[in-house]
Amino acid sequence: MDRNLSQPPAVVLFSGGLDSTTVLALVLSEGYRAHALSFRYGQRHNWELRAAERIARQMGVVEHRIIEIDLRTFGGSSLTADFPVPKGRDPAVMAKEIPSTYVPARNTIFLAFALAWAETVGAQDIFLGVNALDYSGYPDCRPEFLEAFQRMADLATKAGVEERQRMVIHAPLLRMNKAEIIRKGVQLGVNYSETSSCYDPSAEGLACGECDACLLRRKGFAEAGVADPTRYQPQAVR
Amino acid sequence: MDRNLSQPPAVVLFSGGLDSTTVLALVLSEGYRAHALSFRYGQRHNWELRAAERIARQMGVVEHRIIEIDLRTFGGSSLTADFPVPKGRDPAVMAKEIPSTYVPARNTIFLAFALAWAETVGAQDIFLGVNALDYSGYPDCRPEFLEAFQRMADLATKAGVEERQRMVIHAPLLRMNKAEIIRKGVQLGVNYSETSSCYDPSAEGLACGECDACLLRRKGFAEAGVADPTRYQPQAVR
Repeated sequence: MDRNLSQPPAVVLFSGGLDSTTVLALVLSEGYRAHALSFRYGQRHNWELRAAERIARQMGVVEHRIIEIDLRTFGGSSLTADFPVPKGRDPAVMAKEIPSTYVPARNTIFLAFALAWAETVGAQDIFLGVNALDYSGYPDCRPEFLEAFQRMADLATKAGVEERQRMVIHAPLLRMNKAEIIRKGVQLGVNYSETSSCYDPSAEGLACGECDACLLRRKGFAEAGVADPTRYQPQAVR
Repeated sequence: MDRNLSQPPAVVLFSGGLDSTTVLALVLSEGYRAHALSFRYGQRHNWELRAAERIARQMGVVEHRIIEIDLRTFGGSSLTADFPVPKGRDPAVMAKEIPSTYVPARNTIFLAFALAWAETVGAQDIFLGVNALDYSGYPDCRPEFLEAFQRMADLATKAGVEERQRMVIHAPLLRMNKAEIIRKGVQLGVNYSETSSCYDPSAEGLACGECDACLLRRKGFAEAGVADPTRYQPQAVR
């Protein structure tokens, strides 16, 4: 690893999916030392964590932590509970209607942990891969939410209050569509065949092709004019 | 239990200490069904969780959950790491200087989980026992922090955005001093001998008498003119 301590540290929320892998590539290209943070929260698509571990290693993060938090205790989502993930939704309506894959307060919880880690490693920058164009309508992916989180974060930490270290939340993909994100990632050399986006993959990690995450991803590759390297389950190929 | 479903649910952040036990008593006296939420976060004063379990049962909460989150992974605090808890600080300076017992972003993390649970149980009210008078100067106990968290919470959840359910953060002790809190609790029938405040108790749960939490608590009982029922370690009795 050729990174050294003169490079500033950054905390990156990192799921191993298409968006957060693109963000990680961006962060590294800007010369940060990346501290990647993932969560095992009871998601049925646990497969993404294996992708996250592999990608984090390949891309050369300083450190990759997987926090265990069991959001299944609360239930309330098809991503963590026992009801089915919706399939075949029209991407045009996704942004207008919050689906059952919404996990209560998930990004609030993830960002709260990122804040804690940033404070302890002395990072002033926190990155996450949310975007509010090609997305599932989740409230905690919207610009208003991120702005409010930033104002709260400014008052939440010892480092912030003592004015030693203001922590800034960056969402560089917020206003990009999926095709733009993919083009940006390809420029930065991201190998998207390693990334895992599917909410309901097979035991071998093959994508279903039909959940919101798969549909947005397929549409993105098509619109970007980039060959889709995702490995789909046989019945998903149309 | 004589509570019924016509009573509104509330989520209460509940450590088993003096403040949050008083809040729980208040919440129950106001006719809520209380969902008590505690955290095993790697605190050295794990003893408080035994107190929390006992008190929650005795006071008749609907449900008590203990979430496991290991904040020791991050370090940065004498409450979760291997350096000593400060002893013998002057209560008059506590509020002016953030001590090493500060846990990075702790209340942000706790409130984020409370938000998730409130959304899934359909609660509109979240209570916590922070106070900004007799306290250790933690930034995330201040009114400005709570107001900013409230604004963020309004934008964070599906229930909030769809306007089915606005979740309100209540901190009824915020502007009370310790003596006022104790008097209020005594009125409500709280048995403070069960509560555990010490940051550094013995293996048997006896309080050290010298950490910030013990000093504020001792001072509170003295000023309230209430006999202090805390069981102290022998060397602490002066």
